[in-house]
Amino acid sequence: MLDKVLDAKSVAIIGASKIKTKRGYQAIKTLKADGYEGEIYPVNPKEDMILGLKCYKDITQIQGDVDLALITTPARTIPAILRKCGEKKVSGAVIIAGGFRELGEHGRELELEVVKAAQETGVRLIGPNTSGMINLKSNMNLVGIQNAPKGHIALLCQSGNMALTLITEATIRKHEGFTYYVGVGNESDIKFHEYLEFFRNDPETKSILMYVEGMSEGRKFLQEAHNTSLKKPIVLLKSGRSATGKKSAGSHTGSLAGMSEVAKSAYERAGIIVIDNSDELFPVAQTLSSQPPIKSNSIAILADGGGHATIAADLLTDYGINMPELSDKTKEKLRKILPEAASVVNPVDVAGGTDSDPNVFADCAKIIIQDPNVGGLLVVGLFGGYGIRFEESLAVGEEAAAHRFGAMIKKRRKPIIVHSLYSSYESHALDLLRHYDIPVHDSLDISCKCVASLCKYGNYLKSYHGKTNFVFDWRAKAKTEGQKIIDNAKKEGRNVLLEHEAKQLIKLHGAPTSVGQVARSEDEAWEIARKMKGNVVLKIVSPDILHKSDACGVLLNLSSANEVKKGFKQIIKSAKKYNADAEIRGVLIAPMAQKGLEIIIGTKIDEQFGPVIMYGLGGIMVEIMKDVTFWVLPVSSTSCKKMLGDTHSSILLDGIRGQKGYDKKTLRKLLSMCSELIESYPDIEEMDLNPVLLYENGLDVVDARIILKK
Amino acid sequence: MLDKVLDAKSVAIIGASKIKTKRGYQAIKTLKADGYEGEIYPVNPKEDMILGLKCYKDITQIQGDVDLALITTPARTIPAILRKCGEKKVSGAVIIAGGFRELGEHGRELELEVVKAAQETGVRLIGPNTSGMINLKSNMNLVGIQNAPKGHIALLCQSGNMALTLITEATIRKHEGFTYYVGVGNESDIKFHEYLEFFRNDPETKSILMYVEGMSEGRKFLQEAHNTSLKKPIVLLKSGRSATGKKSAGSHTGSLAGMSEVAKSAYERAGIIVIDNSDELFPVAQTLSSQPPIKSNSIAILADGGGHATIAADLLTDYGINMPELSDKTKEKLRKILPEAASVVNPVDVAGGTDSDPNVFADCAKIIIQDPNVGGLLVVGLFGGYGIRFEESLAVGEEAAAHRFGAMIKKRRKPIIVHSLYSSYESHALDLLRHYDIPVHDSLDISCKCVASLCKYGNYLKSYHGKTNFVFDWRAKAKTEGQKIIDNAKKEGRNVLLEHEAKQLIKLHGAPTSVGQVARSEDEAWEIARKMKGNVVLKIVSPDILHKSDACGVLLNLSSANEVKKGFKQIIKSAKKYNADAEIRGVLIAPMAQKGLEIIIGTKIDEQFGPVIMYGLGGIMVEIMKDVTFWVLPVSSTSCKKMLGDTHSSILLDGIRGQKGYDKKTLRKLLSMCSELIESYPDIEEMDLNPVLLYENGLDVVDARIILKK
Repeated sequence: MLDKVLDAKSVAIIGASKIKTKRGYQAIKTLKADGYEGEIYPVNPKEDMILGLKCYKDITQIQGDVDLALITTPARTIPAILRKCGEKKVSGAVIIAGGFRELGEHGRELELEVVKAAQETGVRLIGPNTSGMINLKSNMNLVGIQNAPKGHIALLCQSGNMALTLITEATIRKHEGFTYYVGVGNESDIKFHEYLEFFRNDPETKSILMYVEGMSEGRKFLQEAHNTSLKKPIVLLKSGRSATGKKSAGSHTGSLAGMSEVAKSAYERAGIIVIDNSDELFPVAQTLSSQPPIKSNSIAILADGGGHATIAADLLTDYGINMPELSDKTKEKLRKILPEAASVVNPVDVAGGTDSDPNVFADCAKIIIQDPNVGGLLVVGLFGGYGIRFEESLAVGEEAAAHRFGAMIKKRRKPIIVHSLYSSYESHALDLLRHYDIPVHDSLDISCKCVASLCKYGNYLKSYHGKTNFVFDWRAKAKTEGQKIIDNAKKEGRNVLLEHEAKQLIKLHGAPTSVGQVARSEDEAWEIARKMKGNVVLKIVSPDILHKSDACGVLLNLSSANEVKKGFKQIIKSAKKYNADAEIRGVLIAPMAQKGLEIIIGTKIDEQFGPVIMYGLGGIMVEIMKDVTFWVLPVSSTSCKKMLGDTHSSILLDGIRGQKGYDKKTLRKLLSMCSELIESYPDIEEMDLNPVLLYENGLDVVDARIILKK
Repeated sequence: MLDKVLDAKSVAIIGASKIKTKRGYQAIKTLKADGYEGEIYPVNPKEDMILGLKCYKDITQIQGDVDLALITTPARTIPAILRKCGEKKVSGAVIIAGGFRELGEHGRELELEVVKAAQETGVRLIGPNTSGMINLKSNMNLVGIQNAPKGHIALLCQSGNMALTLITEATIRKHEGFTYYVGVGNESDIKFHEYLEFFRNDPETKSILMYVEGMSEGRKFLQEAHNTSLKKPIVLLKSGRSATGKKSAGSHTGSLAGMSEVAKSAYERAGIIVIDNSDELFPVAQTLSSQPPIKSNSIAILADGGGHATIAADLLTDYGINMPELSDKTKEKLRKILPEAASVVNPVDVAGGTDSDPNVFADCAKIIIQDPNVGGLLVVGLFGGYGIRFEESLAVGEEAAAHRFGAMIKKRRKPIIVHSLYSSYESHALDLLRHYDIPVHDSLDISCKCVASLCKYGNYLKSYHGKTNFVFDWRAKAKTEGQKIIDNAKKEGRNVLLEHEAKQLIKLHGAPTSVGQVARSEDEAWEIARKMKGNVVLKIVSPDILHKSDACGVLLNLSSANEVKKGFKQIIKSAKKYNADAEIRGVLIAPMAQKGLEIIIGTKIDEQFGPVIMYGLGGIMVEIMKDVTFWVLPVSSTSCKKMLGDTHSSILLDGIRGQKGYDKKTLRKLLSMCSELIESYPDIEEMDLNPVLLYENGLDVVDARIILKK
């Protein structure tokens, strides 16, 4: 669908210019210089010829078809130009100008006008507020970055500077480059997920590299990403995590940066390799586009000295990658070709065994990579620099080894990654490795991160769950009685359900909870309490008191008539003292819950991804350790298995120190019930089940709060 | 003291050679090529002249003084050679050969022999198992790494490959280099702390860069580091953290890699900037040697585009650095020189304001750096590349700006750090910045880490505590009665104190604990219990049962005569069932402790640093969240204030959700008491106070375990 836009056969430059510093000049110059394969049509009412090309007064005067318009004129001119483009039946337009929603209300109105013009004319928009786009396959360079290297990575970026950074890095690193670059800008028409779909279907694109500050259609993006990750890896850096970072992202593209925990977990569930560190973005994308994923979560290290091996082993351990023991056969073979001081366990240290002949690296590599315990090979140290560091003649052995590495990577479907501290020197051996699509890095840290990413992607492919989906089936299983509870609250002008209403609603959907009964007098309180087995708890019922404890509106563990009646009076008194105007509906009497493991569950509507659920252990685990996990809804009882494993403290669910475990199955059912509930009642904005007490068998939702959309 | 070794005026090469691939040839060649200022004496019984220099049969035949011997001969030859060196009154020797303790028992014996020869002859040793050393001030290059750049960093390294990596990196990065490189090797004579002391007193050394796998005299090192950090920063990477990493470090230099938590906290208390990521080692050392530390923990960002600023703000927030609001005056001034779309809050985004004149960067920088809220300036983006990316003529403006940056850094004592994605291109403006000692990085992540390190060092200088010391005053406050308890256990052949003995010992030193009494019969049990107020707890007393709970040897909360007597019998029975051969001394009767906040305190003897203490909250906080902190002893009640702040969960001590706080003062006193105890009784190997129950007022050590050295 975006073919005519991203693979345009003809481009009109609206705002073409003869002035060298203008974008309208540079774009034409670059298209010509790079050898763009399509037609170029300069448009400017004041010029006849620009750079040897006929210049048109108006886009409608061009005789041939125009697939794409590059518009370099200011913001206010865009709506009118788009209508002209529509007349000419242009498929797409790249809008460079800033000055839209990122500048506030006035800009936002102008942007809406632009989007309206696009929708009415059918012209699809890249941007506005973008540095442009490049199709490196057809040399359609609409950005003016020179010498951008071609390759197999599609670059999707929300910052022109980050695109420039990544393209510059690719140039310096050599060998791998890009199929496309798209600056999504304000993403006001074409969205992230549409580009993603296009790249998924592009046969030359092997991996997709993204820099995201915020996205407007997060849920559709997740669905597309989930589909895409099976076919090719997506590597993504999400910035704007911090408050100040958010401010800066906000003033940049005007997009909404969402909660980082939500975004990260959502992206990862969709199979995306999320990167925290911008240095790693390009190398990881490069590695993933050239190396097979590692499904065994294991790697062997081959080193020519202790230091690098030690650091690499530290890092890989931090990343949770196994460094498996080598087989006896492997060790024996290595022992035969290496000196006595060598270490033939993993990491393998040649200890001088390559000093006089670096080709021994290839001998070792071949032995190690055949070991069935080993998922791939990481070479660390000086390889590629023996000719530089020691003796020029050693370069020949290195080159011979490089060819053999190339043969190995073709034969076995195991990745090879090379760290060399000579990677920025002129080294023919390293160039040969690059020729064979073996990534070469000068950073140990990045090399290890690349290994970790291959494992992460391999783990995803292995554990991929076809049923995972991010589509929400609103009103799926709503119940008439449930809707009545909500409608009733709305009728009364409330956006908060009272505790017993919230409990009734979740009980309707199968959640284990004691709703209790509302008493309107002391006597009624005791009447209700008397019928309950064991002690009771009393809680104030008032639409005006959200935080019951703050109003001293909760009393626990009451048993006698005297206690209950006194308690009733006390609660009413405290509530009135807390808020004299509060409408008091009575006191909720509920059975006192047994002690259990405290769990907290919550849902909210995330700005980018819509409904999400939070799960964690209650008390200090959530309040101090922030040991909670966020998942995008919907979730099923089965998918929640993984969710429970996402927090450190979940280990308590299995019972520690010889204690019995807890009823995880019922807990998972409760989580999927929450998912169902949010799907069923679109009126719900937020829900808190806190605490939920979990037992060896069953659980009890002790308090529930539901807030409706206003 | 090491002057004659590290600043040697004459070097003998023992094992000098005419064969080009031999170290004994390369060393002489490099010394001559680099222009070593001292005398060079080749030594080899079989040669007369090497590389134009007279060759001596034997070191004793050299007529002039010899300060240093470089010994390139195999391990087994070393002891005899050292005795010859002693005869010649050589001050030091660099021993290249491997084959000592890193190769096991046989090598260990040879190494002891080498150390003995050194001690008897007074020759100080660098190594063995080292790549050598370089004094860049006198061009004494005993390693053979060519073109190592000179500068102000002293490099102290336990891996030759890491040294090569760092020297290579310095060469690529330009401008900053080294005063010395020392490969400590097996550290069998001269220790880390001795080198440190030497570098502290070297006026040309501005920072010290260390790569450590393990050290043999950790405590002396900490003391020296503490003294050094006040004068110049130490930057350190500790590797060998992981098990596999440890294996690799072990086979490399044979040194003992200690527990990473202990090492990291110890180093940081001594003011060392500990680095986790090897990519950051050199840039951080470079930054710390050229820029003033930041004492306000704050920075301003100046960017020419949103993406870089957003990422930088994210990272700095992660590192806990403040990005303060700029003053109204600053904002007003910036507003005057920047376009409307610019952001004049921190991060400042020029939004095209430098496109036609990059000198505007310097205008902005000058305004920002004058702001009193701001501790330093981080410039991120394209600076230095305007002439490359856009238009050659813009380079002039960049150069003008660079000169002004240079003037700024001289005038104000505020650091400037520049991130430029053109840092590996030929850019005169960036070279000018380097000339003015302004660090230029191509990585945003590393730039931010450098800012964080300046803040960390500034914070250390600000909070430096003169009383901190790492010297242990063994037997400082031992008490006769205390020693008696220990001696008694030893006399009985036990290396574990019984619970009541351990409690008696800590009580002697002032710890609040109820020792209880040991009952030998049911009746005695009730006799004792009756006199205690409230309920009691019964615990088995047996030198053969260390884990009382495992043996069902603990009963809680007993009150009546019947309960206590029955309990006594039950415990004895369980203990016998658990271990029929156990010597049972009776049952300890102690008052049942009130509920309180569970704390765990432990001490142990760390391999590298000696006695250390662990503190944390008990239960799941220690068992699952591993939220504990380790400090090297001794600690004082005052220094423990900071210690309590080291764990996340310590926030509970202050009371949360309106709860009252706990008695931190008594807790600190208990920690310093533990310190005193370990100092006083060198027999103690390990101590566990677990749990300690902490109250609003006071605390109770409920269980105590002390293990003695065997």
